[in-house]
Amino acid sequence: MAQHNLENIDTSQYPHINKGLDGIVAFSTTKSFIDGQKGELIYSGYNIDTLAENATFEEVCFLLWHDRLPNSKELEKLKKDLIAQRELPKTVLDYIKNTNKSAEPMAVLRTAVSMLADYEPIDSDNLPHAIAITAQMPTIIAAFDRVRNGKDIVAPLKEGSTAFNFLYMLNGEKPGDAAEKTMDLCLILHAEHGMNASTFTARTICATESDMFSAVTGAIGALKGPLHGGANTAVMNTLLELDKQGDKADPVAFTKGKLEKKEKIMGFGHRVYKTFDPRAFHLRKMSKQLSEETGHVKLYEWSEAMLKTMKDEKNIDPNVDFFSATVYYSIGIKPDLYTCIFTMSRISGWSAHYMEQAANNRLVRPRALYIGEKNLDWKPVEKR
Amino acid sequence: MAQHNLENIDTSQYPHINKGLDGIVAFSTTKSFIDGQKGELIYSGYNIDTLAENATFEEVCFLLWHDRLPNSKELEKLKKDLIAQRELPKTVLDYIKNTNKSAEPMAVLRTAVSMLADYEPIDSDNLPHAIAITAQMPTIIAAFDRVRNGKDIVAPLKEGSTAFNFLYMLNGEKPGDAAEKTMDLCLILHAEHGMNASTFTARTICATESDMFSAVTGAIGALKGPLHGGANTAVMNTLLELDKQGDKADPVAFTKGKLEKKEKIMGFGHRVYKTFDPRAFHLRKMSKQLSEETGHVKLYEWSEAMLKTMKDEKNIDPNVDFFSATVYYSIGIKPDLYTCIFTMSRISGWSAHYMEQAANNRLVRPRALYIGEKNLDWKPVEKR
Repeated sequence: MAQHNLENIDTSQYPHINKGLDGIVAFSTTKSFIDGQKGELIYSGYNIDTLAENATFEEVCFLLWHDRLPNSKELEKLKKDLIAQRELPKTVLDYIKNTNKSAEPMAVLRTAVSMLADYEPIDSDNLPHAIAITAQMPTIIAAFDRVRNGKDIVAPLKEGSTAFNFLYMLNGEKPGDAAEKTMDLCLILHAEHGMNASTFTARTICATESDMFSAVTGAIGALKGPLHGGANTAVMNTLLELDKQGDKADPVAFTKGKLEKKEKIMGFGHRVYKTFDPRAFHLRKMSKQLSEETGHVKLYEWSEAMLKTMKDEKNIDPNVDFFSATVYYSIGIKPDLYTCIFTMSRISGWSAHYMEQAANNRLVRPRALYIGEKNLDWKPVEKR
Repeated sequence: MAQHNLENIDTSQYPHINKGLDGIVAFSTTKSFIDGQKGELIYSGYNIDTLAENATFEEVCFLLWHDRLPNSKELEKLKKDLIAQRELPKTVLDYIKNTNKSAEPMAVLRTAVSMLADYEPIDSDNLPHAIAITAQMPTIIAAFDRVRNGKDIVAPLKEGSTAFNFLYMLNGEKPGDAAEKTMDLCLILHAEHGMNASTFTARTICATESDMFSAVTGAIGALKGPLHGGANTAVMNTLLELDKQGDKADPVAFTKGKLEKKEKIMGFGHRVYKTFDPRAFHLRKMSKQLSEETGHVKLYEWSEAMLKTMKDEKNIDPNVDFFSATVYYSIGIKPDLYTCIFTMSRISGWSAHYMEQAANNRLVRPRALYIGEKNLDWKPVEKR
């Protein structure tokens, strides 16, 4: 078996080999800007702080798709279009009802989104596809979660925001204002984030002139990976591990113990941000507020204690996953659905990048350096 | 809307921007070597000519997965394992039976492969997943083709090669030696081809530590694009367009006419090969042989005439897609299944690259240059 450490190979001509394309600026984009040193994030012109304080998820979708905010008429039209597309084709619903109940929610979402393509005219513009997938993803996620828990599927509402309708379909009852607002903020904060692995996957698939369903299906597969979208589930599982210690639970000792054992603590550090992730700032505020409103302050306090310990011991700041975990938990969403929720939001960014790539396309095809043998002699199978 | 031609932006620091990662050596690999100048292709040590003359598709799968050829016992075990995995879970069969009959075969394949994951233990080794997907893809493709044509699905055989069983399931009768051998050769020639867009997609998805089903689903989506796997269908459609001209059909005038109108003629030229694609050489030989055996020499003769015209007029050589189109057509496969057949073969290379990436992984995440505005002021929706 050939070796991959490249010790005996002159790789001086190949400075990027096996480095994950780190540092290579591969595309121009109007979708988002990240200043990792300053902790600044911008979506198509608007700072994430401005959007977190003022926008709705539907406005953010329009912004990412059109590079400008909608006027009242445009926003009303988009909301109406999204509502009109919430229902799933029967074949998709049948699949959700009949598949293995222990299947991974992200795998079911990947399959169901792929299947939506069978019922869409693929030669149409891309924007209607973006609207359709954005509208249908929440229905898929809520339906499978109910089915796997032995509950009846709740049909989507013909009114209300994406956040409101999702919580309604998931729980079977209409959410309160605080829960809707929390959910909406989470959708805004996860909508877009530069050339991350799933967005890059979507653009690479788009670049073969393949359809948006292919690109989004691939992106879901990429986001499913623990190194990408799976981190907030891991954060919550860490907090629940601490919770199992009952009265003896001590977040500071717990964190230090993990650091001593060199265990990876999820939710801290980021390949791009070298300071406090601006999204974590908004989620932290939301987490504090929710804990005060519900009276369940434990998780929030533990989070703060872990955060302080990580800063003191390792000088690492939390990323978006750290507080999104506790926020989702506070509004009653199960940890193994967190990556699906991420998807429900990031679809806006993926589809925006798809349209941007399609408008200025070139096939994405890097190269590989062959390090194996060449032109070996054939031996018949009996002589091997 | 921000512009992407970058005319007014200093991009001197970003030599790779919007260039499709062209020329960047991103990975080391033992899976294949391509010398585009010489027209040489090697799979894990063996020249494609050696493999085309001596190997079976099953041996090529083993070679790509293990970087060596199997001995008799290993080859028998692999064949047995592949045969044992050919059946589809009921949910997958139900989907194939019940979905929209006018859905694209590649879209149905993408969905069905994604769905297979619901029935696989995802923590297992990757090799069993590679075997399962390789075994099940032909069943999916043949089943959907029969369903959409109003025919009963033919269950897979419990014996015979991948090529033999596929043609049996597709046509409902056992193929002759020539058809089996042709199909097997096509599977060998399309198995692996360096860092093409779909293989690169599979590695990018793998790099988030996502599962093989996610990676392969994404790769199918990439291969589906007309700039990647869709070319042989386009070649056949071009030949059928010529065929419609009946007695007046003249391949030389037809080709020159297209060149004059600056229409793209598919099946010629390649981003990597600057000479005759070595795979086209074997397919050309096979195409000639098949045309003589069946007495249907017209398509072969037209192909040769087009090839000569393209060489004379533009000095461009044919690629793998050019002759695979007529070869598939000769053994009775419909043009809109060609990309699926490509997939049935390339799964061996995709899964080999997945395992190689997983063994030496780093998250794939290039960057993008933001060319939009920053920190715009918020205006309430009524004032926009």
